[in-house]
Amino acid sequence: MHVKKVGLLGGGVIGGAWAARAVLNGMDAVICDTDPEAERKVAEVMENARRAYSMMTIAPLPKPGTWRIVRTLEEAAEGADFIQESLPEREDLKIRLLAQAETAMRDDVIIGSSTSGLLPTRLQSGLKHPERFVVGHPFNPVYLMPLVEVCGGALTSEKTRQDAASFYTSIGMRPLHVRKEIDGFIADRLMEALWREALWLINDDIATAEEIDDAMRFGPGLRWAFMGTLLVYRIAGGEPGMRHFMNQFGPSLKWPWTKLMDTPELTEALLDKIVAQSDAQAGDVSIRDYERLRDSCLVSIFQALKTNDYAAGQVLANYEKQLWAGQAKTSVAASITNEPLRLYEGRVEPGWLDYNGHMNESRYLQVFSTASDGLLQLIGADVGYVERGHSFYTAETHIIHVREMRADAPFYVTTQILAADEKRMHVWQTIYRAEDDLVAATGEHMYLHVNSAAGKACPMLPEVADKLAPIVTAHANLPRPANAGRSIGIRPKA
Amino acid sequence: MHVKKVGLLGGGVIGGAWAARAVLNGMDAVICDTDPEAERKVAEVMENARRAYSMMTIAPLPKPGTWRIVRTLEEAAEGADFIQESLPEREDLKIRLLAQAETAMRDDVIIGSSTSGLLPTRLQSGLKHPERFVVGHPFNPVYLMPLVEVCGGALTSEKTRQDAASFYTSIGMRPLHVRKEIDGFIADRLMEALWREALWLINDDIATAEEIDDAMRFGPGLRWAFMGTLLVYRIAGGEPGMRHFMNQFGPSLKWPWTKLMDTPELTEALLDKIVAQSDAQAGDVSIRDYERLRDSCLVSIFQALKTNDYAAGQVLANYEKQLWAGQAKTSVAASITNEPLRLYEGRVEPGWLDYNGHMNESRYLQVFSTASDGLLQLIGADVGYVERGHSFYTAETHIIHVREMRADAPFYVTTQILAADEKRMHVWQTIYRAEDDLVAATGEHMYLHVNSAAGKACPMLPEVADKLAPIVTAHANLPRPANAGRSIGIRPKA
Repeated sequence: MHVKKVGLLGGGVIGGAWAARAVLNGMDAVICDTDPEAERKVAEVMENARRAYSMMTIAPLPKPGTWRIVRTLEEAAEGADFIQESLPEREDLKIRLLAQAETAMRDDVIIGSSTSGLLPTRLQSGLKHPERFVVGHPFNPVYLMPLVEVCGGALTSEKTRQDAASFYTSIGMRPLHVRKEIDGFIADRLMEALWREALWLINDDIATAEEIDDAMRFGPGLRWAFMGTLLVYRIAGGEPGMRHFMNQFGPSLKWPWTKLMDTPELTEALLDKIVAQSDAQAGDVSIRDYERLRDSCLVSIFQALKTNDYAAGQVLANYEKQLWAGQAKTSVAASITNEPLRLYEGRVEPGWLDYNGHMNESRYLQVFSTASDGLLQLIGADVGYVERGHSFYTAETHIIHVREMRADAPFYVTTQILAADEKRMHVWQTIYRAEDDLVAATGEHMYLHVNSAAGKACPMLPEVADKLAPIVTAHANLPRPANAGRSIGIRPKA
Repeated sequence: MHVKKVGLLGGGVIGGAWAARAVLNGMDAVICDTDPEAERKVAEVMENARRAYSMMTIAPLPKPGTWRIVRTLEEAAEGADFIQESLPEREDLKIRLLAQAETAMRDDVIIGSSTSGLLPTRLQSGLKHPERFVVGHPFNPVYLMPLVEVCGGALTSEKTRQDAASFYTSIGMRPLHVRKEIDGFIADRLMEALWREALWLINDDIATAEEIDDAMRFGPGLRWAFMGTLLVYRIAGGEPGMRHFMNQFGPSLKWPWTKLMDTPELTEALLDKIVAQSDAQAGDVSIRDYERLRDSCLVSIFQALKTNDYAAGQVLANYEKQLWAGQAKTSVAASITNEPLRLYEGRVEPGWLDYNGHMNESRYLQVFSTASDGLLQLIGADVGYVERGHSFYTAETHIIHVREMRADAPFYVTTQILAADEKRMHVWQTIYRAEDDLVAATGEHMYLHVNSAAGKACPMLPEVADKLAPIVTAHANLPRPANAGRSIGIRPKA
């Protein structure tokens, strides 16, 4: 299944974020929504998502797709390769509108439903092709959260389940197959249980909204972010394992540790209390700022977990592998112009600042290093070349700082090869601020080609040397940077 | 309250980790435990904690305290400045043993209890000084998790609550005052609610242990790690705020989305199922390896959230501020020897590796940068100096890579001042591998003293220049590094 165009039924918080995920992954999105403000709202979600992705990965995202709002379900369904429904959570409404959309869609297309708790067997009951309907329940913000619960109804085909999961994986998500249809699926049942207890705590004046959130985010929520609950308990049980833990913990099931046997009545008084506490907790910060904070924290956590090759970090790593693999190979011939190469552009990430409020010096080297990876990619010294036993190591680096870069500032890097022999590349790089095209820093590097196992320098293999040679020849005509070969020292003043 | 020595009643998973937190924060710990293997077990926790702290922060931890196991409560209580009780969760036992420990403790000392759910009013009922008893409920692993729930009983004094909270804050924790005494306090009630629903899901074959954990760690658990649940829902409600969200979400409270009205019977069959699923989930990985993975993920998440100055990251940032402030000021006079300065040692963190499996080049500059911060600290160009408007910026850097560094390898950095004038410092640094004292890399730097607001170089203020001068004089006698002033280029071969 190759998805070039997605049809989105509903363009609210969920549908708009599906659109962002699709567009950032190179697909075109046609979104049916009758809200007169839909254009603006989707554009805002799109901008949040773009910002988050630029922080999340330096892997090459495909050229973004296009998107447009339409007013009928049929327009959204027509010509779509995948349809995702994110309409209001009313069973009768969904059943009716799904049948309507089906009249306009191609025969081989799957409909995924974003429902957070309605049963697929019932939702598919009005379809002519119920076998191609499946629940694909995402989490907010849909453009970042990896989880999508995939749950078929009685008439859903196994192929539909698998194809839908493959599609969601292709746009960076982590499908979880829900084996038995149940109201609320898995994650929302867990959330609902916790939520009911939270409502009781507020109702009974045990804790405020803020205190409940603090209890989670400074405590168990931190562990839930990467291990969930069963594995954490197993570890707490120590070497004797899970049975030991259950024996220790079992009795508390009989203790009065929750009031979950009942649910609080949502009286006006309780609603007022919750709203007042939530307002107090949120303070003067706008929802938009909170969205950005939430996204920045999620992205940072993904990257943190990636360094541990675990949980959501593994999802990100796999997604990046897909992106690298799918990258259109830049041909060496096409990249040779009468200018230095331009292989990397990015933005100064919030975490890159030091206590002076400027980009930390080590991040400059990180930027140069990423740009060098682009060069190595171009000449075929890519991850596969490294796995086959050869690589380039940095022998020396000389950085000259010229101008500051502020948070979120866009930049680009140019790369010029000053010289090369069979084992070495002498490279000059410049980081430019994209806003004014002024130089922020220059980097001069000597890269050594090595046999990794031997840990020794050795000549480049022909597959790489042959790609490098025409670049070296072309760059020999470029002017030599004035500061190339400069050394550091306090020189007598003029 | 200045705590130099803590008395720990109980040295199991919780007590041992309290010991590690205290010892790493420079306090001596006397631990009462009758387990013949207590020494070994506490030593293992201590080693885990040491590893975690070395990854977590480069701020200067105090010299570690000492610890020893004793066999009676009285020995642990005697001479302690703070007592923490982590005995088995049986009310009668705790009441009896707390009274026994009280006979040996000083009159002005607080007892904190690690109980995860027993009521303080009952636990303090056998004490002569119940006003100095308070619950301080921590979370596993206690040496890393910020949350400690502080809950007084009917007879606990306000001063005891405040002093206990200050003590916990001083060792890097985040106290949460529980305003109303309740079984299970706040966090465990939330965990318990979620846990009961998880047990039902397993019992009814809706999901396995692994699927439940996946539903959390790829989904809502990620958001719970930094915002909790109320604020996340508020954001989901969008600009209309919390009332709007409640109106949308309210009806689902009536839907059959949890089975929490009841608890599953822990039959042998259910226990067998949970244990088998947990074993399958854990695979061949040992508990010890899982502990390290858990700790590495937690540390990474703390650091990730620190870049967003939010949630657990704020706790870490505040803790580091304390550490920097509490650092014994190294006097310039004491640091002048006939050797280069040695101001930073550390370990290669797991997240520092690149796809070659070596420390990424940008991390070398990060290490040099941290060592330079140590130099600036020493000559008084510290955070306060920066806040008052002056700073040193890096103008140039030249790195020569000599040897690889592998994951977790210890290293130290030496710093030699080659020259200085009123505005500039020319500095030479060497990273040595601690295991064989061989050079891993050298760094040559030119630092420029600037007026930050003007963004211009200016002479160092006397407070800094006067501290720098004797170091420059002493270092003038050190041999000049052979590679100082070297430039990069492909030179003709010999």
